[in-house]
Amino acid sequence: MAGNTFGKVFIITTFGESHGPGVGVIVDGCPPGIGLSTGDFVYDMARRRPGKRSFESPRKEEDQVEILSGVFEGLTTGTPIALFIRNRDADSRPYEKMRDLFRPGHADYGYYRKYGHFDFRGGGRASARETAARVAAGVVADKILKPIGARVICYTIELGGVRAEQIDLALIDESPFYCPDPDASRLMEDAAQKARSQGDSVGGIVEIRVTGCPAGLGEPVFDKLEADLAKAVMSVGAVKGVEIGAGFEAARLKGSQNNDPITPAGFASNNAGGILGGISNGDEIIIRAAVKPIPSISIEQDTIDRKGNAAKLTITGRHDATAIPRINPVLEAMVRITLADHYLRSKTIKILN
Amino acid sequence: MAGNTFGKVFIITTFGESHGPGVGVIVDGCPPGIGLSTGDFVYDMARRRPGKRSFESPRKEEDQVEILSGVFEGLTTGTPIALFIRNRDADSRPYEKMRDLFRPGHADYGYYRKYGHFDFRGGGRASARETAARVAAGVVADKILKPIGARVICYTIELGGVRAEQIDLALIDESPFYCPDPDASRLMEDAAQKARSQGDSVGGIVEIRVTGCPAGLGEPVFDKLEADLAKAVMSVGAVKGVEIGAGFEAARLKGSQNNDPITPAGFASNNAGGILGGISNGDEIIIRAAVKPIPSISIEQDTIDRKGNAAKLTITGRHDATAIPRINPVLEAMVRITLADHYLRSKTIKILN
Amino acid sequence: MAGNTFGKVFIITTFGESHGPGVGVIVDGCPPGIGLSTGDFVYDMARRRPGKRSFESPRKEEDQVEILSGVFEGLTTGTPIALFIRNRDADSRPYEKMRDLFRPGHADYGYYRKYGHFDFRGGGRASARETAARVAAGVVADKILKPIGARVICYTIELGGVRAEQIDLALIDESPFYCPDPDASRLMEDAAQKARSQGDSVGGIVEIRVTGCPAGLGEPVFDKLEADLAKAVMSVGAVKGVEIGAGFEAARLKGSQNNDPITPAGFASNNAGGILGGISNGDEIIIRAAVKPIPSISIEQDTIDRKGNAAKLTITGRHDATAIPRINPVLEAMVRITLADHYLRSKTIKILN
Amino acid sequence: MAGNTFGKVFIITTFGESHGPGVGVIVDGCPPGIGLSTGDFVYDMARRRPGKRSFESPRKEEDQVEILSGVFEGLTTGTPIALFIRNRDADSRPYEKMRDLFRPGHADYGYYRKYGHFDFRGGGRASARETAARVAAGVVADKILKPIGARVICYTIELGGVRAEQIDLALIDESPFYCPDPDASRLMEDAAQKARSQGDSVGGIVEIRVTGCPAGLGEPVFDKLEADLAKAVMSVGAVKGVEIGAGFEAARLKGSQNNDPITPAGFASNNAGGILGGISNGDEIIIRAAVKPIPSISIEQDTIDRKGNAAKLTITGRHDATAIPRINPVLEAMVRITLADHYLRSKTIKILN
Repeated sequence: MAGNTFGKVFIITTFGESHGPGVGVIVDGCPPGIGLSTGDFVYDMARRRPGKRSFESPRKEEDQVEILSGVFEGLTTGTPIALFIRNRDADSRPYEKMRDLFRPGHADYGYYRKYGHFDFRGGGRASARETAARVAAGVVADKILKPIGARVICYTIELGGVRAEQIDLALIDESPFYCPDPDASRLMEDAAQKARSQGDSVGGIVEIRVTGCPAGLGEPVFDKLEADLAKAVMSVGAVKGVEIGAGFEAARLKGSQNNDPITPAGFASNNAGGILGGISNGDEIIIRAAVKPIPSISIEQDTIDRKGNAAKLTITGRHDATAIPRINPVLEAMVRITLADHYLRSKTIKILN
Repeated sequence: MAGNTFGKVFIITTFGESHGPGVGVIVDGCPPGIGLSTGDFVYDMARRRPGKRSFESPRKEEDQVEILSGVFEGLTTGTPIALFIRNRDADSRPYEKMRDLFRPGHADYGYYRKYGHFDFRGGGRASARETAARVAAGVVADKILKPIGARVICYTIELGGVRAEQIDLALIDESPFYCPDPDASRLMEDAAQKARSQGDSVGGIVEIRVTGCPAGLGEPVFDKLEADLAKAVMSVGAVKGVEIGAGFEAARLKGSQNNDPITPAGFASNNAGGILGGISNGDEIIIRAAVKPIPSISIEQDTIDRKGNAAKLTITGRHDATAIPRINPVLEAMVRITLADHYLRSKTIKILN
Repeated sequence: MAGNTFGKVFIITTFGESHGPGVGVIVDGCPPGIGLSTGDFVYDMARRRPGKRSFESPRKEEDQVEILSGVFEGLTTGTPIALFIRNRDADSRPYEKMRDLFRPGHADYGYYRKYGHFDFRGGGRASARETAARVAAGVVADKILKPIGARVICYTIELGGVRAEQIDLALIDESPFYCPDPDASRLMEDAAQKARSQGDSVGGIVEIRVTGCPAGLGEPVFDKLEADLAKAVMSVGAVKGVEIGAGFEAARLKGSQNNDPITPAGFASNNAGGILGGISNGDEIIIRAAVKPIPSISIEQDTIDRKGNAAKLTITGRHDATAIPRINPVLEAMVRITLADHYLRSKTIKILN
Repeated sequence: MAGNTFGKVFIITTFGESHGPGVGVIVDGCPPGIGLSTGDFVYDMARRRPGKRSFESPRKEEDQVEILSGVFEGLTTGTPIALFIRNRDADSRPYEKMRDLFRPGHADYGYYRKYGHFDFRGGGRASARETAARVAAGVVADKILKPIGARVICYTIELGGVRAEQIDLALIDESPFYCPDPDASRLMEDAAQKARSQGDSVGGIVEIRVTGCPAGLGEPVFDKLEADLAKAVMSVGAVKGVEIGAGFEAARLKGSQNNDPITPAGFASNNAGGILGGISNGDEIIIRAAVKPIPSISIEQDTIDRKGNAAKLTITGRHDATAIPRINPVLEAMVRITLADHYLRSKTIKILN
């Protein structure tokens, strides 16, 4: 029983592989009457696009989103919105030698053990290419969040061992890593460049903040808001950890430190990260995702072939030195999608209005 | 649209509140022909039961699991298994004063904002009491994992700032915290006692390890095994963070360090935590959960009443100093349930056998 | 992957067997703030109860609904409502001889082929006893329909070959078969009595009418209102056919006859049965269900045992001569549940109220 | 909460409108390793294509299925299979006048009441055009049924009041209506021609027969095989009734007539239509669908405009005189999809193989 669908009311189903005709998504459950056109996707798709920065692969993807259904005379109709992004510039020849070798840290081995037959070119279905469809769906989700005043912001607080010391959200678009600390951003760039020059890669930590989220979203006891956010974030390749509010640090606090006092003016602190008992409390939602270093490195590695024989692998071709910042709009999209879904879900608990 | 169901093939739905008649669970999708009797639940229910240790509330719960359906002549029938655990010794009078005051760090405020009308006694539906139903369902899930050789083990690696320095799984049952390091266990006990004597509480980190998990479980791209595990773990109250394998530490590694080399004898390291590309790779699965300090403390706290007026709150009555170790069998149960679900899901991808 | 759950927003999961501890249902997704008490179930449970009429089995079931969760201070809380109905007077000895013989027309053979191990006593899970849980859930669903003015009415239009010639809904409660035609009702009673005296049984047709259903319910293209109603009705044992509006008769009409003209005052006819393109149109919804004769007859029948050997079977014990009228409140409940579900689903398509 | 997805393990999601870029379907949950190419779709798509017969609209659709994902080197990979069929020759100008008028018997009114904003051109999402996607998905489903020996056959037993007197399945492909009785087929052709010449339309009854279906498919108590088949069939536009086995006729039989005796050689009759207690019994599955006359007629009809004013409507343009035989491959596809889904679902009830 496959798992390419996410959400229960705002429901997305993605499809497509790295080196097939393209990737896409069906958005089902989007309310009618929302203005939507191909232009709406340009900004977010561009942010996910590689090849703009020195530490990234020069692969050129245009990533134009085609609307195949669900929009009429510029407005959504309430029927499924199919979005398709054609693959271009997808030379699969460099992957021919991977036909038999499993790349360490990649999905190849798991796919082989599970499916037997899989499209290994560029990671196939497991490629980061698939996330283009998520970003497109996130643009639609954002159309639901905007009228209610909720906004999702995503930025890098750690990369290659460099930690942001200050968080000034006004500065994140000036940093190639969406880092809210300009000094840290420069050091991050050095770290990424250095790793790339060594044929290596680095990881980091991305923080996602939601402002203006109404109280009352989340469905205990399993579809708690933090549970669905954790799943959303962890479903993005390269993410190995997720935390809400104080997160792992909360494990070291006393109850008297960790509890957020409640005042007539609101919560006096936000260790909860905006979620109590699985339900948004109206405060800012804070999520952090641990992003592992990209597994495609040009340093020689030990592996095996499909028959189980030992082999040496040196990955050539274009590769980024870090999944950050390209993963940021993907994480942002997943949070948008989760919130749009829970917002629409929350509408079912009142009989009249 | 409510969220009290978890799983897609091995499906559990829990119900019940802390101070109502009881809590329970429907397990739907359990294969027929499995031996199951009330005796099977005794060990795990006892582990979750409070009042056994000095740092815990003396509340006495018998937690006898009643099988209401789905078992005939000692064997499951493939029809829904309804399990019910009656509440006993549930004096709700201490909660009367909470009728109007929101307890900081608790679900009260979220439930009030979402539902308006809620059962506030002892946390009601948001009470840890609900997790008794999860543990019962976990016992059934374990019946599916045993024949395939998978085993879930859960232990505490950090509590109140004390970190386990060694991990000897043979020792975890000798520690009141299921701590695999006897020296650390003693220090943890001191920390918990001290917090309790101060009317305060402590948090910690629990690690869950799965041995014998077959390769091939997990359903990309959204129902990746780590994504569903993250949701399962994060759906347990008090958990604020979750990581797989190297987790947040992976964010600080280079690709050349983090990638697990593959050899004919298996993976040479396990930073992946047993999951690659969302699919189990046959290695041990490693999950860590950050557990916040219990919010019920007897130190006076600032809060508001339902009308929004400032108030002071001092929580009296019985309370544990830490959610650990009672949360451990709950986390273990959630991992068992997730794996049983994914194991049964994995059976649908072959047409013949 | 089991199938004991129905609905997507107003979600019911039933459990229990004929001769186990009892049957029950979890209703998840019911909005908070609705008055609900055990007294609310009395009327509908009594209608489903057997033994009141001469053509029915004298089995006495009290069918008292116990509320195990989800209600606090007389109001629903938005959390799962667990309802349980204990089995009483359930003597399973008459079924011992059925341990090895498949009863023709019953579920035994299918359950044996599917599950191998099954509770054969009184039909076990496949018993009409399970429908008591559906009726209880239907009472909750009705609490959602009432405020919006929708009402589900169920009556018998054919039994044992006798067809109602007039439909006067004011008279249905005076007929033991809920037949809207008093003359036909008397003939139906004769037919049922006669079949019973011969050790045989009869079938019939039940019509369900919904008044006051708002326009706009139904979710094309698969969860069309008529599709979900067809599933709801066909999921009740003994139902072998379902039709909407003109139904099978529509197959014999011309388009010019079958199309319902639209006028400023509404539809001029109702061959559509209140549903166009999968969406309610505001007119009355008309559904008919074909109910087969009860398969438990005392006439000797040919069958086989579990080893496949030919055998003769004579069913003794208490049995109704017809599933009507006891099936009527069950069909009514399933329609109520389907409409409540679709009504709540319809609330998700507007962003701001 | 939208409803464009069908199935639980073999899951299809359709998208697209009559006069947009095209229609398509995502098939998720199809096992890997199945040979699939565009050529596989030609036969079934051609059967659904209009314009081949005198009583049909001359609209020319090429209906070439494009595989956008999920197939690699000619084999399915276990990842989502996206199929797309471009719309061609779709002149929407004739529909401009329908912008304000609701066509009687069509979905227009329901869509307007539900969504407010909808694509009215050619029925938009409610167009029969959408069923092309279902037929394509049915071809994939058939790839799962073939290895297990199950075959779905669909034929017309009544049209325009003409009933087939004999059923010779070898003859159905020789009849333009897939009628198994050559004499009746000629009379049906006359009836359809006559209706068309009068600007009117006719309905009929289609029977679907499944041979070789293994025993054990179906998931009580809600996802009974007949319940899901009823939903599948009723989800096709124009279907107003569905019955299994003896169907509505069973309502007129005695239990002693309707029960199918069981013999060592199998069932002695098949009033059950191959399903007992919601589970296939190994016998042939028999389903009948009542198909209403096509609502697009050129006879003038009464209707209203969007403001509620009375209006006269005469529909011009190309229209078939009957949904049969084009609906037949659609019904066949829905039964194939339902069976493939239930077959894969049935694999989850055994722990080891």
